[in-house]
Amino acid sequence: MSVITLYDIASTHPRQAWSPNTAKARYALNFKGIPHRTVFLEYLEIEPLLKKIGAKPTSETFPHYTLPVIYDPSTNTVVSDSIEIARYLDATYPHSPRLIPKGTTAFHYAFTDTIVATLAQPLLAYNLPASLPFLNPASQSYFRRTREELFGGRRLEDVTPTGAAHVVEWLNVKESFGRVDGWIRKNSRGRFVMGDTICYADFIVAGFLRWTKLVLSRDKWEDILSWHDGRWANLMKEMEKYDAVL
Amino acid sequence: MSVITLYDIASTHPRQAWSPNTAKARYALNFKGIPHRTVFLEYLEIEPLLKKIGAKPTSETFPHYTLPVIYDPSTNTVVSDSIEIARYLDATYPHSPRLIPKGTTAFHYAFTDTIVATLAQPLLAYNLPASLPFLNPASQSYFRRTREELFGGRRLEDVTPTGAAHVVEWLNVKESFGRVDGWIRKNSRGRFVMGDTICYADFIVAGFLRWTKLVLSRDKWEDILSWHDGRWANLMKEMEKYDAVL
Repeated sequence: MSVITLYDIASTHPRQAWSPNTAKARYALNFKGIPHRTVFLEYLEIEPLLKKIGAKPTSETFPHYTLPVIYDPSTNTVVSDSIEIARYLDATYPHSPRLIPKGTTAFHYAFTDTIVATLAQPLLAYNLPASLPFLNPASQSYFRRTREELFGGRRLEDVTPTGAAHVVEWLNVKESFGRVDGWIRKNSRGRFVMGDTICYADFIVAGFLRWTKLVLSRDKWEDILSWHDGRWANLMKEMEKYDAVL
Repeated sequence: MSVITLYDIASTHPRQAWSPNTAKARYALNFKGIPHRTVFLEYLEIEPLLKKIGAKPTSETFPHYTLPVIYDPSTNTVVSDSIEIARYLDATYPHSPRLIPKGTTAFHYAFTDTIVATLAQPLLAYNLPASLPFLNPASQSYFRRTREELFGGRRLEDVTPTGAAHVVEWLNVKESFGRVDGWIRKNSRGRFVMGDTICYADFIVAGFLRWTKLVLSRDKWEDILSWHDGRWANLMKEMEKYDAVL
């Protein structure tokens, strides 16, 4: 089949995507209307397969190989890293809607770093432990080992803030979303990062939101939906158009 | 005189500007070719004067009133905060080159926060103490008191890293500039944030560079000029066009 292959991380539910990073590549493909198929891998399958197909490592430190990766048979090209995938798709499929409008490449790279520091960082103590039940046993032990290292070896079950610590940390999460809301609110019109049209930067934010919606409890998610005049509820509603797993 | 007034912070040298924040507003005015004049204030003059002319406070916490501020007699408008000044100038003088291209408003706000966190933060321990000799006695005592609070009350003379600590911290400064270089380098062409044309985001970076050039020792500045294939040397060269104090 000569369509693009998107490599994604397997979950306990057949063909259910959960990773915030691969979500960005899926949004990008669906936004551009590019036919593709998804291949789900367990964590331990990622590095061997990516080496075999000639994917570039995404980091000089562990883990060297990460998803998303795409393989495009029409150009015989393998592309690693969601923002590189967006740039590749813009360059290779110029007649589809543009993900990274002309002149905004550096802004998009800066925004990627900023969103990780602003939104992802305070969410990790909530989202990482809550992701465990979505992983198959083989991936669970890998995920636990690598993610517990981020918290100085503490068990994932113990890192989620509770009680008074939760009140403080959850306010921190809300204020972090508030900073991003503050930037977007400065637009004279429109509810997306670039105003009234969607671009790849919206998918960066939406990827983390989608992950949060999937893994956190319903009361936490409904709290987020009530924040910032419903900005995140509206964004997630809009993203439904681009969320299909093909 | 019916030209815009730019309020700036006084230095020991008559009509020499030193503040990285007011520099952004000056770059913006000169880039757009808008006639203006500069009024220099000592720190303790800022709040009384800004209240008198009806400037908006820029922060809910101390200091509430900061520079730059402009007063435009042609519209009888006072604008506080450099990015708000840039937006005002784009809206009011639409026939001059645009500072914040359409669709990039939210990116510019995000970039402002990112540059403060990325570039300004590691520079403060160097640049703040080195700025003292540029201030008149009345402003020096205010500056010392407010800036020493940022370092837990340590004397400004003691916060600049020396010896082994300097080696580590200076590498941190270099890596911070390296992150910004990495974003800009992703452009397929051009040496500015948006590629081959200057925008307000370049002035955010340049404001901090200009301050660093003015206050740090020559050897440190020449080190910076050697970094990242001369990117910062080239940017400062380009900025000379927009640096005149009117």
